[in-house]
Formats: sequence, structure tokens, C-alpha cells
Amino acid sequence: MSAHPRLSLNQATIKYADLAEALDATVKAGYESIGLWREPVQAAGLSRSIRLVEDSGLRVSSLCRGGFFTMEESAARRESIDDNRRAIAEAHALGAPALVLVAGGLPEGSRDLVGARERVRDAIAELADDATAARVTLTIEPLHPMYVSDRAVISTLGQALDIAEQFPLGVVGAVVDTFHVWWDPQLLAQIERAAGRIASYQVCDWATPLPADVLLGRHYPGDGVIDFESITAAVEAAGYAGDVEVEIFNQQIWDSPYDEVAARTRDSFAAVVGPHLS
Amino acid sequence: MSAHPRLSLNQATIKYADLAEALDATVKAGYESIGLWREPVQAAGLSRSIRLVEDSGLRVSSLCRGGFFTMEESAARRESIDDNRRAIAEAHALGAPALVLVAGGLPEGSRDLVGARERVRDAIAELADDATAARVTLTIEPLHPMYVSDRAVISTLGQALDIAEQFPLGVVGAVVDTFHVWWDPQLLAQIERAAGRIASYQVCDWATPLPADVLLGRHYPGDGVIDFESITAAVEAAGYAGDVEVEIFNQQIWDSPYDEVAARTRDSFAAVVGPHLS
Repeated sequence: MSAHPRLSLNQATIKYADLAEALDATVKAGYESIGLWREPVQAAGLSRSIRLVEDSGLRVSSLCRGGFFTMEESAARRESIDDNRRAIAEAHALGAPALVLVAGGLPEGSRDLVGARERVRDAIAELADDATAARVTLTIEPLHPMYVSDRAVISTLGQALDIAEQFPLGVVGAVVDTFHVWWDPQLLAQIERAAGRIASYQVCDWATPLPADVLLGRHYPGDGVIDFESITAAVEAAGYAGDVEVEIFNQQIWDSPYDEVAARTRDSFAAVVGPHLS
Repeated sequence: MSAHPRLSLNQATIKYADLAEALDATVKAGYESIGLWREPVQAAGLSRSIRLVEDSGLRVSSLCRGGFFTMEESAARRESIDDNRRAIAEAHALGAPALVLVAGGLPEGSRDLVGARERVRDAIAELADDATAARVTLTIEPLHPMYVSDRAVISTLGQALDIAEQFPLGVVGAVVDTFHVWWDPQLLAQIERAAGRIASYQVCDWATPLPADVLLGRHYPGDGVIDFESITAAVEAAGYAGDVEVEIFNQQIWDSPYDEVAARTRDSFAAVVGPHLS
């Protein structure tokens, strides 16, 4: 059974698979595209990863992830910037059009959310030339506000666009991840504003109660309360024509066989997201 | 030791105290004001509650809570509207200037967030005449977006103001609760916009990791990462001159002696919020 031609399996959905296993499960379930993470790529080695991806015949929809650069000027900040330069190079080498950036939380002991947010912009400014040269879009991912203090000080699509718009189209963009932004009363207006800036569209569902680890409360599309029709239609109307990733952090799904997860992801996507894509 | 003259102890901070015990702990810790909840008031009986409050000499800063009216037209919706009318009457009888409204989440089985939000506005429109007559401000509380699906579809101050501004000043206002809104990149601008509309200012702190029940992750001011200086200064600049409540949902605090909680609340407030009040 083939998957929707624009569906991409984000590797985090089968977190415990190594790169070869992830590519294999993705191909077997009929996908044409995969979203990669740096850790399994590094575990396989970059050269071997490039070969494995080429052999699989899959497109690479994005590379996760850079970012984590909210700290003040310091050796740690230089290390972060350098690591992000390496991530841009890896994305380029793997043929990923987008490098997903998670901003990072408040530095230890800090209450200066405004300053942390400014330093995200400054870090992106440092990376923009590398990204331009590599033709990799620095793709800011707004994370749900419940992660603002410890993971990502960028909480809304509007905020991501406020930064992205300071740079040329194609150099800095934004992720629309339904789990993170579905609650936002300004979402549809901001998606419209984002025309040309959406560099990744990720889907998974929201349901309550949240699990004890709130990072893991994501679900297959259709298993929660998100209205994928209106969000997907808005993303389409904003001109996004790229792959659509399913990225689910969920312990029960992580503990399931990779093939089963890839198939169930494909089918849930076909049921509630695919019909709203052109 | 006396508390800051504008400090009010929200009764939920000592959740297991009955009304008499709550008033007693509040008076003994040197407060001039208390925020009441309907359940303990109803347990004591409204007439007796009024006498107890009068005898205590405390002001009542607000009554929690009305709302929960996102359902479609039905007997349940009529019951909710009627219950909110009773809540307005109770607030009036207790001398509370503000009735706090928590919107309610998505109705069971619904994915229509836009519709649920419209029905919040419609419910408030139904209640506005009662509130005007009772001189009780219907005070919309935006809750953190992690509660959007199961508790409150109103997630930002801007969204609360979009509704409040459809009604006269004094009839419909908004709560600024630091725990719920501190992450919002538009917060300071929306507080400025809220001049004359802020009918309750509530403070407590945010820290991670969140507990297994994310409702209970609130902390004494100063024990987390919120910058009370900038938020409090903005609320002051917007002209809010009323009482400032500390409202903490936290199992460990609930399990502590009431007097200890009232004293610790007073002292933490004096350290990190009081200095920024006029």
C-alpha cells in the first residue's frame, strides 16, 4: 500500500530505530519521504548516511534539529553556533531543504525571557550566510507555550515570523506543527501571513490528559481534538507544497514495532490530513 | 506581621480550609483581603458566609468562578447560564467586585475551537445585564494554552480583551494571572491595551518539570522563573489599583498548615511582587 505522495515519516516517531531501520520501515510502508534527526545520522556516520538515504530512494523532508542558542555570549554560545553550522552542512549533504531549529529555554537561573528571545534572533543572524550558501532554510519551530522555560522561548508562529521576516525568503522560515500551535487564536491569520515562509508542516494530534512527561503527549492524527482540515487548508492556501511530516513523541508508539507505526501513521494521515492536501 | 495592603489570599491556595478557617488564617497572617471560591461559600451557606466575611473585616477581592459555557444550545447550556447568574448574585452579596470566568474546554467529541470561542462571547452577552445591575465585573481568565482543550478555550489576554471590548468598561474585564500568561510574547503590549479592563491580578510562579497533574504546577512567587517586576509594572501602568491575589494550585502547599501557607505567601509576595506596586 502506498502512502500519500507528500507524507513524510519523521524519524522521531520511531525513535529507537537506527537510520537503516528507519529508512527500511519507511520504504516498506510505501512512503516517498522521511524526516531525519541528527543523532541517528551521526551514529551511522554522515557518509554512510548519505549512501543509505540515496539507496532508499526517499526524499529527506527536513533535518532535526539545530537551535538551543538562548545563552548569553560565552564559550557555550560559540559551541552552539558552531554546532549549528555543522547541522547546516549536514542538512545540505543529506539533501534536506530545511533545518529545524528549536530555540532553547531560559538559561539556568535567568528570568529574562525578552533577552533570551533576542538572542535567538541574533544567533540566526550569525547563521544566515551559511544557510544561504548551503541552500538550507533555517526553519524556526514555535513550540507549545508549556515548553517555554525549558525548551523553546519561541512559542507562536507570529513570533517565529517576526524573526524570519528580518531575513530573505528561503533563508529563514518557520515550522507549522499542529501539536504546538493548534490552540493559537491567531493561528489561521499567522499562517496566511506566513506565505513563502512555511518551510515545514508537521502534524500530530493533541489529547488530554497529558502524560506525566508532557513532551510525550502526542498522538496519531485523528486520535485527538485537532481540526486538521482548517489548518491544512490554511497551510495549502499559504502556498506550502512540500512534504508533510508526522512527528509523534509517545512512549507507547515508541514501544511498538516500527513497521506497525509506519503503517498506522500512513493510514491515519490518509484519513484525516491527506484529503485536505492538493 | 502585616501583609502588603493590596495582597489578597486566594482561597484555592489553602484549598482544604473551610470558609471560617480560611478567613481566620488570612486575618492571622495580617492580610486585608481574600479571594473566595463558590464551593466553600456554598458549603457554609451564603447568609452565614456574608456574616463570616463581615466579621473578619477582610475585603473580598474576587469570587471564583463562573464560566464553563462552551457547549452548544441545550439544557446543559441553560443550566450553565443560570448557574452563572447565581454566581453574579453571590459575588454581589459577598461584596466581590469581580466574578472570575473560566471559559470551559472543547465540548466532548468536538474539534470546533472557533465555535467554542464564539459561544463564550455569546454566553457573556447573555450575562452582561445581570452583571451591570449587580455591579460585578465579569472577569474573563485566559488560561495557559496547555488547558485549552479540557478547561479554557480562552488562552491569551488578547483574546479575552477581544471579547471584553465588546461590552462597557466595568461590565466585562480580564484577569492577568502570571502563571497563565507570562510566556506570551504579546503580554506587555496586551496589558497596556487592557487599561481599564484588568479586573483581577493574580500571581504565582512557573517552574519545571511540570508535575504529573499539570494543573498543580504552581509555586510561590520567587520560586520559579517569572519576571514579576516587568509584569507588575505593566499592570500598574495600565491603571490597575485593586487587590493582588496569590492563587497557587500545588499539592504540597495544599498539604501544609494553613497558617504556614498564609505566612509564606505573604512573605514571598513582599519579596518579589510588593516592591513593584505603588
